[in-house]
Amino acid sequence: MLVGDMSLAPPSTAAALVIGNELLSGKVDDKNLGVLARGLRGAGVALTRVVMVADVVELIAAEIRALSASHDWLFTSGGVGPTHDDVTIEAAALAFGVRAVINPELAAMIRAHYMDRCTDGHLRMALVPEGAVLESTPELRWPTVRIGNTWLLPGIPEVFRMKLPVVLARIGGQPAFVSLAVYTNMDEGVLKPLLDRVVFAFADVQVGSYPKWSDPAYRTKLTFDGRDAARVAAARDAFVATLPAGEPQRIE
Amino acid sequence: MLVGDMSLAPPSTAAALVIGNELLSGKVDDKNLGVLARGLRGAGVALTRVVMVADVVELIAAEIRALSASHDWLFTSGGVGPTHDDVTIEAAALAFGVRAVINPELAAMIRAHYMDRCTDGHLRMALVPEGAVLESTPELRWPTVRIGNTWLLPGIPEVFRMKLPVVLARIGGQPAFVSLAVYTNMDEGVLKPLLDRVVFAFADVQVGSYPKWSDPAYRTKLTFDGRDAARVAAARDAFVATLPAGEPQRIE
Repeated sequence: MLVGDMSLAPPSTAAALVIGNELLSGKVDDKNLGVLARGLRGAGVALTRVVMVADVVELIAAEIRALSASHDWLFTSGGVGPTHDDVTIEAAALAFGVRAVINPELAAMIRAHYMDRCTDGHLRMALVPEGAVLESTPELRWPTVRIGNTWLLPGIPEVFRMKLPVVLARIGGQPAFVSLAVYTNMDEGVLKPLLDRVVFAFADVQVGSYPKWSDPAYRTKLTFDGRDAARVAAARDAFVATLPAGEPQRIE
Repeated sequence: MLVGDMSLAPPSTAAALVIGNELLSGKVDDKNLGVLARGLRGAGVALTRVVMVADVVELIAAEIRALSASHDWLFTSGGVGPTHDDVTIEAAALAFGVRAVINPELAAMIRAHYMDRCTDGHLRMALVPEGAVLESTPELRWPTVRIGNTWLLPGIPEVFRMKLPVVLARIGGQPAFVSLAVYTNMDEGVLKPLLDRVVFAFADVQVGSYPKWSDPAYRTKLTFDGRDAARVAAARDAFVATLPAGEPQRIE
C-alpha cells in the first residue's frame, strides 16, 4: 500500500499516460516509464497509476481528462510529432475544452531551425492546446509544453530524458522517498510471518518482497520505502533482527 | 488507429493489468509487456489497453472488473506470491464476486514440492478465485490460473515467459498480424503529406511513423500493419512508390 508517512504531509501524486500503437503491438518496448518513476521518486512525488493507449484522439482525450483530474500531475509520453499518428496535442486540447493553436514562439523556433526546408508538416510541431505554457530551463531552451497540471512529453527516449529535468525543476522540492533493502536466501513462504510483523508495526513504511528466479547471490529481496528516513531504517532493522542465523546475505 | 481488416472479422481484443509498487517506484522496469504484446500479435489478438497500479486490492479489483468486461481477454502480471503485497488472487475474487479458496490440486503440488519444509505461507500460493480453471500444457505441468476471460500471470519475468505459451496455445488460432517497414533518411515534416495519402487510401492498414534520434542508419522508420498480408504489402509499396530518388534506405 502507498501509505503517506504519518509525520509528513502526503506526497503529491502523479499519473503517466503512455501513448503509441508501437508499444501495444510490441514493436518497441517502453523506455520512459522507469526514468520518469525514478525521477518523480527523487522529487518526492508518488507515481500511482500508468495507462497505455493507442494513437486514437478520443481515447487519449478521455484518459487525459480522467487522470489529470484524479492526480496532482499528469505526464504524457508520445504522440507529439507532425505525422497523422501524432494526436496527443489535439487530444489534450479536447480534454481541456480548448482549441489546438499554433504557438508563435514555437513556430519561430521551428522556422529558425529548418530555415528554407521548413514545411507545413514541421510547423504542425508548433501546435499547442490554447492556454498551454512553454516550460524551459537555462540548460534546455527548447520548451516543454504544459497545460494545467499536464506535461506533454515526447516519446523518443533520448528527448524524454533531455526534458525530464525541466519537469523535475518545476515540480520537485518535496522530501524524496528513501528506499532500503535486505537480501536473503529464504523463500517467501518462510519470510511471510516475519514480514507480516513489520508491516503491522510500521504502517507508514511500504514493505515489498521480491523473489529472484535462480540468482546465486540471493533468493528474496525485501524493500523498505518511505519519506521518513528514520522510520524506514527502523523498519528494516526491526525486520533484520527477526532473521535466523546466517541471514541476511546483504543489507543496503 | 486500430482498424480491423475489411476482409476479416475484427481481431479479439486484450488488455493487460501490470501490478506492483516496485514498477511505479521505478525500482524495477517492466519486462513482461513487450513479450505479451508480441505473443498476442502473433496469435492475432490486439492488445489495446494497459494499466499499471500498485499492490492495493480494491484498485486491482476495480481494474479487473472494468478491463475484463471491456476486452475479450485480460492478462494480469504480478502479485501472485505468498506475501502481504501479493493481493492479485484476492482482488480477482473480489472482481468476479467469488471467494478466494484453496485449490486442492494446487495445494497437493505445493506440498509435494516443499515436502516437510511446506509452511502456511507456501500454501497461500494454492489460493484461487472460486470457479477458476487451472490451465496447463504437456510441456508445462505447473498450472496457470484463469478465471473467465482473465489470466493471472506471475510478475517474475522468467516465470511469465514460461507460462505465456500455455496462454497462446489456448487463445490463438486467429490470423496473425503482419508488419512491414520502410526506413528513410527523410524527416517527419517532409514525410507527412506522403503518409497522409497512404493512410487515406489504406484505411485497413495501420501506418506508423517513428523518428530515430541520431542513428546513422536512418532517420525515420515507417511501419505498415494489418492482418491481410496482401493489403499490408500493397500499402507499403504504394508508399515506397511516392518516395524521391535515393530513398528508401531499406525495406522489410
